[in-house]
Amino acid sequence: MIDRLDDEYYMRLALELAAKARGQTGVNPVVGCVIVKDGRIVGLGSHLRRGEAHAEIHALKMAGEEARGATVYVTLEPCSHYGRTPPCADRLIEAGVGRVVAAATDPNPKVSGTGLAKLRAAGIETVSGVLEAESRKLNEAFEKYIRTGLPFVTLKAGATLDGRLAAGSGDSRWVTGEESRAAVHTLRHWHDAIMIGAGTALKDDPSLTTRTPVPGLHPVRIVVDSQLRLPLHLKLFTDGQAPTIVLAAVDADSGRRRALEAAGAEVISCAAQGGRVDLRDAMRKLGEREIGSVLLEGGGRLNGAMLQAGLVDKIAVFFAPKIVGSGGIPLFDWPIAERMAEAVELTRIVIEQYGDDWCVTGYPEQPAQGGD
Amino acid sequence: MIDRLDDEYYMRLALELAAKARGQTGVNPVVGCVIVKDGRIVGLGSHLRRGEAHAEIHALKMAGEEARGATVYVTLEPCSHYGRTPPCADRLIEAGVGRVVAAATDPNPKVSGTGLAKLRAAGIETVSGVLEAESRKLNEAFEKYIRTGLPFVTLKAGATLDGRLAAGSGDSRWVTGEESRAAVHTLRHWHDAIMIGAGTALKDDPSLTTRTPVPGLHPVRIVVDSQLRLPLHLKLFTDGQAPTIVLAAVDADSGRRRALEAAGAEVISCAAQGGRVDLRDAMRKLGEREIGSVLLEGGGRLNGAMLQAGLVDKIAVFFAPKIVGSGGIPLFDWPIAERMAEAVELTRIVIEQYGDDWCVTGYPEQPAQGGD
Repeated sequence: MIDRLDDEYYMRLALELAAKARGQTGVNPVVGCVIVKDGRIVGLGSHLRRGEAHAEIHALKMAGEEARGATVYVTLEPCSHYGRTPPCADRLIEAGVGRVVAAATDPNPKVSGTGLAKLRAAGIETVSGVLEAESRKLNEAFEKYIRTGLPFVTLKAGATLDGRLAAGSGDSRWVTGEESRAAVHTLRHWHDAIMIGAGTALKDDPSLTTRTPVPGLHPVRIVVDSQLRLPLHLKLFTDGQAPTIVLAAVDADSGRRRALEAAGAEVISCAAQGGRVDLRDAMRKLGEREIGSVLLEGGGRLNGAMLQAGLVDKIAVFFAPKIVGSGGIPLFDWPIAERMAEAVELTRIVIEQYGDDWCVTGYPEQPAQGGD
Repeated sequence: MIDRLDDEYYMRLALELAAKARGQTGVNPVVGCVIVKDGRIVGLGSHLRRGEAHAEIHALKMAGEEARGATVYVTLEPCSHYGRTPPCADRLIEAGVGRVVAAATDPNPKVSGTGLAKLRAAGIETVSGVLEAESRKLNEAFEKYIRTGLPFVTLKAGATLDGRLAAGSGDSRWVTGEESRAAVHTLRHWHDAIMIGAGTALKDDPSLTTRTPVPGLHPVRIVVDSQLRLPLHLKLFTDGQAPTIVLAAVDADSGRRRALEAAGAEVISCAAQGGRVDLRDAMRKLGEREIGSVLLEGGGRLNGAMLQAGLVDKIAVFFAPKIVGSGGIPLFDWPIAERMAEAVELTRIVIEQYGDDWCVTGYPEQPAQGGD
């Protein structure tokens, strides 16, 4: 397909520059920038690491004097305020660019639109909304985090056609095929943290690292262990591959807590109900800890509890063409709906094939009654 | 897309003529035929009803004298034996056709290849295997029936993303959306019979008719009621919309049986194990009754028992983007696999979207150990 040479042509490249940096900007958004002058690309940039240069700055540097009068394609509105770096809007004005095309405005309601306004005030033509949906989807975690202070939670699971995480005995090696499992490791690379329940930690003793054909980033590992009953010999506490956070009830045993901390884990005390971590409070504390995105990898009890609490933003289930029957471990081990009308519905469903498996992604909407 | 003008070009039309007659030929295959001469279609035919003309005969009649020297595209090898109609191979020879292109040979091992051999012996050029897979898939039910005498069973279900036929209370109105439900009525039109368990009959009191924007065919209704406990006021026994067969254990109460027969139902006595119908024996008896295809519409217990017995040939599950949790009724209410390696695997997976739902179809392969 030969694309039409228009604003979207260059914005697609800017989006790709942003997308490939997913996972390496922490709670910052991913942003790509392309500068075009007289029919030629003269500058390319991407925001690569929190605290370092924004995409526009990299691209302006590459463009040098060519930036004067050029069109700047940027996937997110240039910032207008002093943060960890000086405002990009000022730098674009100084460079004398002629036109700025943005995909999306800043999702932070306090500053949204101010960057473009500053540019317009300096006489620069601005356009906004070119491939906006694509840009917003790339930064859906950032958008939630900046607005609520809570991490964006993506529930990922591998299940059989009949919705089971494991066969009757608990055996789950393997549910999904090689292509699905490879995709999961890319998902891990994209997230700040990966979260499991104590049951899964005990049963599988997972390392929760990112295993990819080229090295990826290991997310912070989070395990919900309300009463700190996990033994210290688990890989999460011994392999040193990535930091490990334990979410514990505030009344958990302080000796166990000290032992975990001595082993190098970080223990976060959360409000508790009936001895179990209050998951909403836990998410709030993870947000304060600057964890903006969490990949939730079950098991069924934690999946169910997180969904029921309204804390799951997105679901990605890889289904394998297998049937294990009613003895298997349920995808959501939680009685969510007594009547169909009370079911949690998913919107914006996308279905993609991975070898013999298929992945269903969607966004849960809590029913009018139920959830929280 | 502008198709290349080759044998497949006309065979695709012949396949379409066959496909649209699905459901109206009983245990006979669907067959389409297109006759082409000097670059023009001169004859079209489709087998429309068991005991009536085959596709080739209709097409030859339309072509008349033009058939001489023409090419005949037919989705299934012309028959060479006297059945309910005289052999088509003889009629093609008489008509003086020049070339016969077949998609598939006859799946009946006793006669496979004999029709084409007869044509070749008469000096007619023959080609076989053009879009063979498409033709065989159209007649997959016929192929099983002719080889084994057993009906081809397609398990159809509507389930939530987490593999539940209903919410915790048993409520299942509605799991899937309007597009999925419309597709199910087309599936009913295509099948000789539709089968449910006594539990579903009691709970839902369904009519199991084909409700379509233009009138469709109602399949024979089959209910498994081992001990004949169903009440006579159910729609299946009173609405007169289609014949109803009750599969009963051989030792079921004879008074109940006579009452059902008096109400117009047909009761088939099957071998029993522990008071429950032996499903394999039941399928054998349905085959003898000339039911070649069965649409199995659950519930979970019957789905599980049929799958475990190795009697399900194909699965078509319509999934809705909803989650009801572990209180819901399982898709297969049967403990099929203790270990993942014992799972029933599906092959030739196809995924299609119906509105917000998606349908997964596949063919179960029983594991090496387990099943029967």
